[in-house]
Order: sequence, then structure tokens, then C-alpha cells
Amino acid sequence: MIVVMADKATETEIKRVLTKLENAGFQLHVSQGVERTIIGAIGDKTRLNDLSLEAMAGVEKVVPILQPYKLVSRAYMDNPTVVKVGDVEIGGDSIQIMAGPCAVESREQLLESAEIVRRAGATMLRGGAFKPRTSPYSFQGLEEEGLKLLAEAREKTGLRVVTEVMDTKTLDLVAEYADMLQIGARNMQNFFLLREVAKAGKPILLKRGPSNTIEEWLLAAEYILAEGNRDVVLCERGVRTFENYTRNTLDLTAVPVVKYLSHLPVIVDPSHAIGKWRFVEPMARAAVAAGADGLLIEVHPHPEEALCDGPQSLTPDNFFKLMQNLKAIAGVMNRQMGG
Amino acid sequence: MIVVMADKATETEIKRVLTKLENAGFQLHVSQGVERTIIGAIGDKTRLNDLSLEAMAGVEKVVPILQPYKLVSRAYMDNPTVVKVGDVEIGGDSIQIMAGPCAVESREQLLESAEIVRRAGATMLRGGAFKPRTSPYSFQGLEEEGLKLLAEAREKTGLRVVTEVMDTKTLDLVAEYADMLQIGARNMQNFFLLREVAKAGKPILLKRGPSNTIEEWLLAAEYILAEGNRDVVLCERGVRTFENYTRNTLDLTAVPVVKYLSHLPVIVDPSHAIGKWRFVEPMARAAVAAGADGLLIEVHPHPEEALCDGPQSLTPDNFFKLMQNLKAIAGVMNRQMGG
Amino acid sequence: MIVVMADKATETEIKRVLTKLENAGFQLHVSQGVERTIIGAIGDKTRLNDLSLEAMAGVEKVVPILQPYKLVSRAYMDNPTVVKVGDVEIGGDSIQIMAGPCAVESREQLLESAEIVRRAGATMLRGGAFKPRTSPYSFQGLEEEGLKLLAEAREKTGLRVVTEVMDTKTLDLVAEYADMLQIGARNMQNFFLLREVAKAGKPILLKRGPSNTIEEWLLAAEYILAEGNRDVVLCERGVRTFENYTRNTLDLTAVPVVKYLSHLPVIVDPSHAIGKWRFVEPMARAAVAAGADGLLIEVHPHPEEALCDGPQSLTPDNFFKLMQNLKAIAGVMNRQMGG
Amino acid sequence: MIVVMADKATETEIKRVLTKLENAGFQLHVSQGVERTIIGAIGDKTRLNDLSLEAMAGVEKVVPILQPYKLVSRAYMDNPTVVKVGDVEIGGDSIQIMAGPCAVESREQLLESAEIVRRAGATMLRGGAFKPRTSPYSFQGLEEEGLKLLAEAREKTGLRVVTEVMDTKTLDLVAEYADMLQIGARNMQNFFLLREVAKAGKPILLKRGPSNTIEEWLLAAEYILAEGNRDVVLCERGVRTFENYTRNTLDLTAVPVVKYLSHLPVIVDPSHAIGKWRFVEPMARAAVAAGADGLLIEVHPHPEEALCDGPQSLTPDNFFKLMQNLKAIAGVMNRQMGG
Repeated sequence: MIVVMADKATETEIKRVLTKLENAGFQLHVSQGVERTIIGAIGDKTRLNDLSLEAMAGVEKVVPILQPYKLVSRAYMDNPTVVKVGDVEIGGDSIQIMAGPCAVESREQLLESAEIVRRAGATMLRGGAFKPRTSPYSFQGLEEEGLKLLAEAREKTGLRVVTEVMDTKTLDLVAEYADMLQIGARNMQNFFLLREVAKAGKPILLKRGPSNTIEEWLLAAEYILAEGNRDVVLCERGVRTFENYTRNTLDLTAVPVVKYLSHLPVIVDPSHAIGKWRFVEPMARAAVAAGADGLLIEVHPHPEEALCDGPQSLTPDNFFKLMQNLKAIAGVMNRQMGG
Repeated sequence: MIVVMADKATETEIKRVLTKLENAGFQLHVSQGVERTIIGAIGDKTRLNDLSLEAMAGVEKVVPILQPYKLVSRAYMDNPTVVKVGDVEIGGDSIQIMAGPCAVESREQLLESAEIVRRAGATMLRGGAFKPRTSPYSFQGLEEEGLKLLAEAREKTGLRVVTEVMDTKTLDLVAEYADMLQIGARNMQNFFLLREVAKAGKPILLKRGPSNTIEEWLLAAEYILAEGNRDVVLCERGVRTFENYTRNTLDLTAVPVVKYLSHLPVIVDPSHAIGKWRFVEPMARAAVAAGADGLLIEVHPHPEEALCDGPQSLTPDNFFKLMQNLKAIAGVMNRQMGG
Repeated sequence: MIVVMADKATETEIKRVLTKLENAGFQLHVSQGVERTIIGAIGDKTRLNDLSLEAMAGVEKVVPILQPYKLVSRAYMDNPTVVKVGDVEIGGDSIQIMAGPCAVESREQLLESAEIVRRAGATMLRGGAFKPRTSPYSFQGLEEEGLKLLAEAREKTGLRVVTEVMDTKTLDLVAEYADMLQIGARNMQNFFLLREVAKAGKPILLKRGPSNTIEEWLLAAEYILAEGNRDVVLCERGVRTFENYTRNTLDLTAVPVVKYLSHLPVIVDPSHAIGKWRFVEPMARAAVAAGADGLLIEVHPHPEEALCDGPQSLTPDNFFKLMQNLKAIAGVMNRQMGG
Repeated sequence: MIVVMADKATETEIKRVLTKLENAGFQLHVSQGVERTIIGAIGDKTRLNDLSLEAMAGVEKVVPILQPYKLVSRAYMDNPTVVKVGDVEIGGDSIQIMAGPCAVESREQLLESAEIVRRAGATMLRGGAFKPRTSPYSFQGLEEEGLKLLAEAREKTGLRVVTEVMDTKTLDLVAEYADMLQIGARNMQNFFLLREVAKAGKPILLKRGPSNTIEEWLLAAEYILAEGNRDVVLCERGVRTFENYTRNTLDLTAVPVVKYLSHLPVIVDPSHAIGKWRFVEPMARAAVAAGADGLLIEVHPHPEEALCDGPQSLTPDNFFKLMQNLKAIAGVMNRQMGG
């Protein structure tokens, strides 16, 4: 890190900073400029936050130089990680499609959805049993009953199941039924939850928080890897911007950036990002062209009757068309569709 | 709500929308314009999200007209709510100052801090025992030991204690020691946590999420009131913007806006919003001038040794000066300092 | 538009609003709900801003229902507009690539760049003669000399030239040399400039402001069309977000959204949006997969010597590779590369 | 600045960077860490942007250390600048109020407004003759007629006049009538305009762009000072955020921050930031409590008939009350109201 001293910093103030850094085990380089003194400190970057250097007299600012994460970085592991959910490989040559309704609403709705997405070529089934809703008056999910229906749909279709864990209290319950545990966008920095879910021993789908930077997202993944669980798939699902025609702004550039900075696989959820089914297909194509390892797509047999996020759900017909179009793009990228 | 039909919507499509709304118990007004049909629907606004109207053929968009919250609104209760934490009244004539270190670090640090803030005129002690940290390598709090120290400080000083609950698993533990339960900014939309904390029967300090609108914040409070707990104090702590000289951008306009829309008290945390101690004092003054019912201020006996957020912590001397200046502003506002 | 009256609005207040709207020529529908009165007003939407309805006593809010633009909308003209710059057609079957250096720096640099991009298959040459720079101490462009070099490069290569107009004072000068006039992102809401450039009788490339919504962007285009110039190409170049690893966040969803709302062609500038050459290629692919009509790409014979935006410029080799890859994606989209 | 080399940077790559920096006159410090090489470069910070270092092979990133502006900084001039507009001193002990309608609409409206604000204690009159409007169909100002009316109002009341210059073409015209030239928020980075307005020899009111950082704002002021004009007053008018209940989010923290970083005076425009008159008064109080040198307030004799921004305009009565309340806050701040 670089410590920039104020232009009026005294000798004593500079010395106190140097002593503190030395005691913390940093190797130091001091540059005495005309205007001010600048201190370069090399050492354990992960300790930076605990030093409160900017609170010291004479310190103008502290500029971190290196990435604050380690286990998720390319520098730590150069080979791309392939995460296995049963026999579904995410991060390999194949593009994996996870599809299904926003929420599990009924046995009929879920089994019909599962059958449709399997036939269209998806390899995993999505569907929320616990739903985070902005309003307390909205449908909040079928809870355990929803989980049982997901398990039944897996039996019937062979699709692997990914579903959201919203709280440590219901973690064991969800982990009993799911093949992959999803951490939702609003929970990306719920550090308690990250640590507990990591310990459940299942692969994890980590959604990016809608106002979080890629660095913060990778640090959230670092929480999971630091608990010994390396099976993390990142999921870009839009960031909050001023644009209000779409729900969020899908940050597809995050795909090649994450692949450059990290060895973890990354998939894209255009449905939640956009909020309007009409634009899901072009953005699904674009995501694959940008290098995504997979997609999370909302499909509902009858979107206009959905209890949650109907406007962004594809009809079965539109999902079939989407899968056809993706195949062509995948071919250009020298990849094939999973399943 | 208003349903705007597409300009090419067919008669049949319009009828299907009308039927759905009627069945859902809405009273309807149809305006047949030259360009398009617009449907006004009056009824239970809280059911809007479950209708998936925008997924219906021929619907261009749905425009909600009324506020989606109810129990927290001025329309529901016109008199300002006064929340009592022991004998400390928040939302009344007095301005209450909650002060203390970011994190409980040691017995000495906490007791010294508590003594300082009490002498300067604060009525409540703040301090985190569980700390949400962006990096897994940062200090994460003393946990139960921290809670015990907070209780000891309360014994010694008479100050009421507010501290953060990060997870439903540790809720009972925190509730055993704290007088007021804080829900942190990152957990503002952790709806599970909101509901569980609501049931703990203690007053709640609900921080605004850094990327959340005032409406979303009030909806989060609605989750708590809907569980039967009315003792909610809102806390503005800065929103995320492009400005990077300060950590966040303190949205002081939220103070009069919240007071206009809701009956709940609102306080301000300039320390976290700004991240630099130097600007805490002018913004604390401004907060009181804007009508805030109190302040949450970080104070540390030795900021440069703090394990967390030292750069934004006031020294004891600066905190004493701040309290003097606030008194004068409070006077102009026809209020007095609590305690 | 919908006028929502406050729940305590009096009869007299409601009447004054109705009278004002009637006098302004609106057709009215009044809904007397249990809680409040809601007034639907149908008429000339473009007059809404001049009525100051929200300043009237008893008015809670005004909710606009229809799009505030007209000439740029699909409703006004359903067939896609094809803009011709010489013989280059933008918005038709072919994907047009405009490429070249950020700034014109010297005769050698520009002619070399032009030769490279022509050989690789671009149909238009980009290059700034006037440069908007955040700092007054940065290189500000070669001005008229730069324009002359652009004209010379056109002579030598046959490429059409697009370059930025920064001010009405230099408009005539730029229009003398350029085939297409670019309005830069920072000038998207420079309404004086929009009107004057519209009158110059040349096709216009209108960049989206980094913090502007799609609606504001279309309204800026409406300024140009309202002056009688229909040859407008929109250019998405990233919006400002919290993400700071990339310069801006490329909003590719804007491509299909603009094509749905408007008949105007839309191209994408991944170079400026991202700021790092490494991610330009995947995002160029993604842009074409999302349906873009063209791309604006920075290419420099020696990026490390560029006076402006070297880090985002492709080397000639990388640009050749990019063009090869785009051809494959274009094929999947049933389009061909222009030129 | 600090140049961080990639962990796989070769000796040759490092040498090329060092040579380039040496040739550009920088003094260098090289730190060879275990993981990577870091180069500190001390020299003319203003040349940084022209070096394209991040385009060089082996360079991971460049981290600027020092502020990129100079003439506007406290380091360059420690004493606060006092800007004189006639006999009105901005930045001294007195708090100056500039008030009046958003737009000049008619002789009667303007003279009535001027009379009201003068009687209430304002020292300057605001009012737009040229109006930047999002829609081409909104009222765009009375242009020269509006300027003449402003001059007439000055004659009659003695108030100094501040009004916006939107374009270099109309600069001379505006400068003929105005005492202070306003650069609007959307033009903050219209660098051509900044330079030309600087040369007009009048004091300048520079509004902050709604999506600009404080650093970018100070750089815009630097453009003006670099042309030899030191009479710049900065005006905070809200930044764009997700909050949509208010038009923008007033960033009052910018007031003490600007005063810490720069010697220039800073005033606040709560009317435009908020967009709702109801919250203007508390935020005007807060602005003075935060240390602002003045306020820009919209006042209209009949807000409900305003052609522009009626909803945010104070009635004469409310403006009188505001001025009374400000006096009390000013007293606490050891300042008096100007005039």
C-alpha cells in the first residue's frame, strides 16, 4: 500500500507512521518528494484494514495497491475452476442453462416447468422456495413444501436443482433438498450467511449484489473459499443504475473481467437484470458471446399467472427459440450447449 | 394503479386485463384515448406485485400510484411516534446522541469510550460486537465477549446500549444484552432477519441500505411494524454515489422527507456516511438543522489504534466540541440535547 | 398523465386543478377513491412540463403515462431508419465498423491508422480533432490541422470520416471536413448544440450521456429530429456506475431496448465504455449478438505512445483478430460485415 | 503516481516503463516486491494523462497519488477567496442569498419577484433567460428579452444579477447584461464553454454536474482559473442517485469538503436538488449549518403558474419565513446574512 503524508506532516508524524508499519511487519520504501513524503509498504495486504492509518496525524490518505483477495485470484490458481453439480460441469467447454420459474408456486406449475426446460435442453432447474420480496405483502414462497416439489421435479426429470438460501436458520433444510445453494444478490455481503453456507459442503451460486463492485463480489467469494469450499459459481444479475426502463443494468463486461481476475466460473441471469421478457433473448445471446459459462433463465408455463416476476419470464415457446439461437452462438465460441 | 395498454392492444387483450383485475377485487375506470386505452384500478394496493399484469399480452406498463407501505405512513398515523429505549425518548423534543467506538475491542477501550461519551452528554452507547467486514481477513468483532463488555459499560455509566444483530442465529444472544437492536445497512433488505428481530420485543434501529430508496427503506420498516413491533427508529447513513472522496454521500434531505411521509423518528450517522472524522462535525450540525431526532457518532479514545474505522472516529476532545456546537443548533431548532 | 391529489385535498383544490387542465385542452377522467381523488388527463403530452401542476395546493404528485418523445418513436415510424453516410448504410443488413485513434495526433499516426482499419474491413474512420478532457493540462487536440488530416485520410482510403463537434463556434469548421458529426457523451444534453448541429445537414452520431437514461437519450435525439434532421445514429458508450475496474459500465441491453422503442439505428462503443483494450473484443462480439448496427472501436498503431486513451486502443493485430471474430457472430445474426 | 507492474512483467517491460518515465522528467523509486515490481514516479502530475502508461506491456495499473488540480487547491492558496459581484462579497463573513424565479417569464413576474426577494433580504437576483430543458417541447426561455428584464429589475432593486450562459454564441449577449455568469450543471464539463466564459472577465457561478465527483468539479474550476479568472463560486445542486422521491440528492458534505480542498467559496442550491418546495427550507438551514457561503433559492410570486419548476419554488410567504430561520442559524455559525 502507499501512504501519502499531508504536505504539512511533521518529522514526528512521519516517524510514527513508519514505526507502526514496521511493527506490523511491513517492508518500507520512503520517497521524500518536494511537496510531500510518500511511504510504500509491502507486506500482508490482508491486514491493511485493521491498521487505521488514516486516523493518524499527518496522514493524508492510504492508497491500496494490490487486490485485497487471494484464493479466488488467477495469481493464486491459473487454471479455470470447473464446478460440478452432480454430472453438470460449470466452467468447462459446455454452456449450462439453469431454467425454471422465479418461485415454486404449485406442484403442477413446477413439474410442468421442469418438463419444459428439460426438453428444451436445460441441465438444471431453478425455482425459489423462499423468496426475498421488497414488500411484506407480496407472496413469500412455499418454503419447505416448495423444496419438496423441487426434489420431486429432480426425480422426474433428472435436472439438478439450484435454489436460494435466505437465512442460516433454514440452511440445513434447503441443503437437504438442493444440489446447489444460491446466495441471492441482496445477501452477497451477508458475511455470516456466506460462512455458514460455505460449510454446507455443496456447490454455491453467488449472485452479485446490485450495487457491488466486482472487487466486492470477489471478496464475498473469498469468504467462501476461505472456509475451504472451492465450488463457487459467480452470477452476474445486473447492477443498479439510473436507467429505469429496465429493472437493473446487466453488466456483461463483468464476464470477461471476472475471468481475467479469477479462476471461478461465471454465469449470467438476464431475466432478473432486465425485468422484461422481451429483451432476455438478445441479452442471453450477448452473454454467451461475452464468454459466460452458463445462464439462469426464468421460464413459466403461464407467465401472466405467475405469483412472482411474470413480466420477465419466458413462455415455453420463447424458451425453445432462445435455446436454438444460443446453440448457434455457442458454436461460434467453440463451445457446445450442456446436456 | 394505472395499467397502460399498448397502442396495438386488441379488444380481447383489454378484456382479459379487466377480468383479471375485477376478479382480484379492483374497482375499474377505463379511459379510451385516441392512441391507447388506459385502465385505472383502485383497490388493495398491497396485492399489486402478485398479479404479473405486465406479463399479459397487450399490456405496455403498470404504473403504481399509491405508496406501497401502510403502517409506517403518516396517512395511517399522523402523530409522530416516540420510541423509548429505557428512559431515553427518541422522536420527542430532545435530540439523542448515541456514541462510542465502531467495534468493541477490549474492556479498557470500551469502558473508557463509554465514560467519555457519557460525560460529553450522550445518552446511548454504540459499539459492535459482531462486525460485517468486506474482507474475510479483517477483524470480525469480539462476539459474546463484546456483548458482555457493553452490558458492563451500561452498568457503570447508565448509558443505554445499541448494537448490531447480524444474523437470526445470534439474535437471542444479542437481545439478551442490548437495549436496542441495530439492523445494519447491508441487512436492510434481509427480510427474514427483519421479521425475526421484530419479534424480539426490543426497539429497533433500522439503517438505510446504501443503495436503497426511501420507499424501500420504509417498506423494510413496514416488515417490522407488520410483525407488531412499532418501536422503529430509522437511521440515514449515506447512499452510494460516484463521489469517492467521502465513503458514501449523506442524504440529509431524507430527514425531512421521512418525517413528511412517516411518523417514525429518524436519526443520522455522519461517521459511516463520510468515513473521515474531519467532516463529521459540520454534518452533525447540518443533520440537526435538517430536523434529525438524534445522531450516531463514532468516538474512540485513540482513533489511530482502532481495529475498525479509526479514520472516521472522533477523538474525545473533538467529540466534546461537537456536543457544544450541537447545543447551539438545537436551541435554534427549539429542541434541547437529551440527557 | 395522472394527477394524484393528496388525501386531504379540498373540493376547491380539486376544482382548480380540473379547471387548469381543461383550459389547457386536456380531456379528463376523475376517479373518486376512498382515500383520494385521482385525475386522468389525456391530451398533448408535450405540454406537461409547462403546467407546474405539482405546485398547486392539494396535488400530491403527477405521474406521466406516455413517452415524452414522438418523432423518434416506433409509434411515429415503424420501419427502421437507415442512415446513409456517403455509401455507408447504418441500420441496414450490414454491420458497420467505425475505427481509428482516439485523437488525431500527427499525419503519420492518422494515415497509418486509416490504412490499417480500412484493410481490416472498417468502413468509417474515427478520430478526434477537438478533445474534451477532464483536465486543462491534458492534450486538447490538433483542431483544424486534425480536421485536414482526417480529410486527407479519407482521400487516401475512401473511408468516411466521423469526428466530434464540441461547440457551436467550431461547428461550421468541423462540418466542412466531416462526413458525420459526432455529439459527445458530455454534450448529449447541450440543447443549443443539438439544435445547431441538426441544422448543419449532415448525419449525426449521438452518444449517450454517461449518466443519462434511455428516455433522456431519445429526447436528445428528438431535439435533432424536431429541427428536421432525421439522420441520427445513437451510440451506447457506457453509463457511470460504482464499478471502477472498468471506466464505465457498457449497457448492452440499451441496444434491443432502443430498437424496440425507436426506429433509429444504434451502434456501440466498447472502447470508451471499458477503458481497457483487453475486454474490447469480447464486448464487441456481445454487442453484435445483442443486435447492434455497428461499432466504434479505437485502434492505434502504437497504443503505448498514444496521447489519449492508449490503454483502451487495440493494436493493429488485435483489431484484425476482432474483425475476424465479428464476421462469425454477424453470420449467426444473419447479417454481414459492411464494406 | 504509482505504476504497478503485472506479476509476470519481464525485465524488458519494466525497463521500457522506467525509460519512458525518465524521458518525461519523472524522478523514480523502484520497489521490487516478492510478487511484483512497483514504480513510484514523482514529477509533473498534470502530464500523467498523456503518457498512456497502462497501454504498455507488463503494466497492470497506474494509481495517481496527488490531486490533479493545482490553482484551485488549498496547497496553492491557503486563504479563502472572496468573490465580489459588485459590492456583494461571496466567501466572506456574510451569507449571500441569490433568489428569484427559475425562468424569466414576463416583466410583471420578474419585477414582482425581484421586489419580494429584495425585501426579504436577498442580495442577488437569479432568473434564466436561456433554459436548458430535457424536452424540445418545453418552454426554452425569453432569451434577450429576458436579459433586458433582468437588467431592468437590477435598476429598480439594486440586486445584482446572476444568469446562465448556455453557449459560446450567446456569451457576449449574456455578459452584457449579467453581473455574474452561471455555468449550468449540464455544462460543467463543456470545456470550450468554460474557457470562453472565463475570458469574459465576470465572476462565475459554477454548478456541479449531477453525476460528477468533487475532483471533476474542481478540475472544471481549474479550467477557469487556468485562463486567469479567479472569481469562481462553486454551487452544489445535487447529484444523481437512485432516490427518486427527490429530483437529485443534495450532497451537503461537499460543502466542508470543498472548503478543505480548495480556497474557493461554495454555495448551495436546494431548490433544484430537491425539486419539491416543502423540503427547501430545512435543507437551506442545513446548508448554512454545514458552512455554505450562500444559497440559490427559487422564489415565484405564483408557483402554480410558473412555466418552469413551479413545484420547487417558494411562495413569497415561505421565502420570508426561510430568511428569518436562516438568520438564527447564521448567528450560531458566527456569520450574518448579507445585505
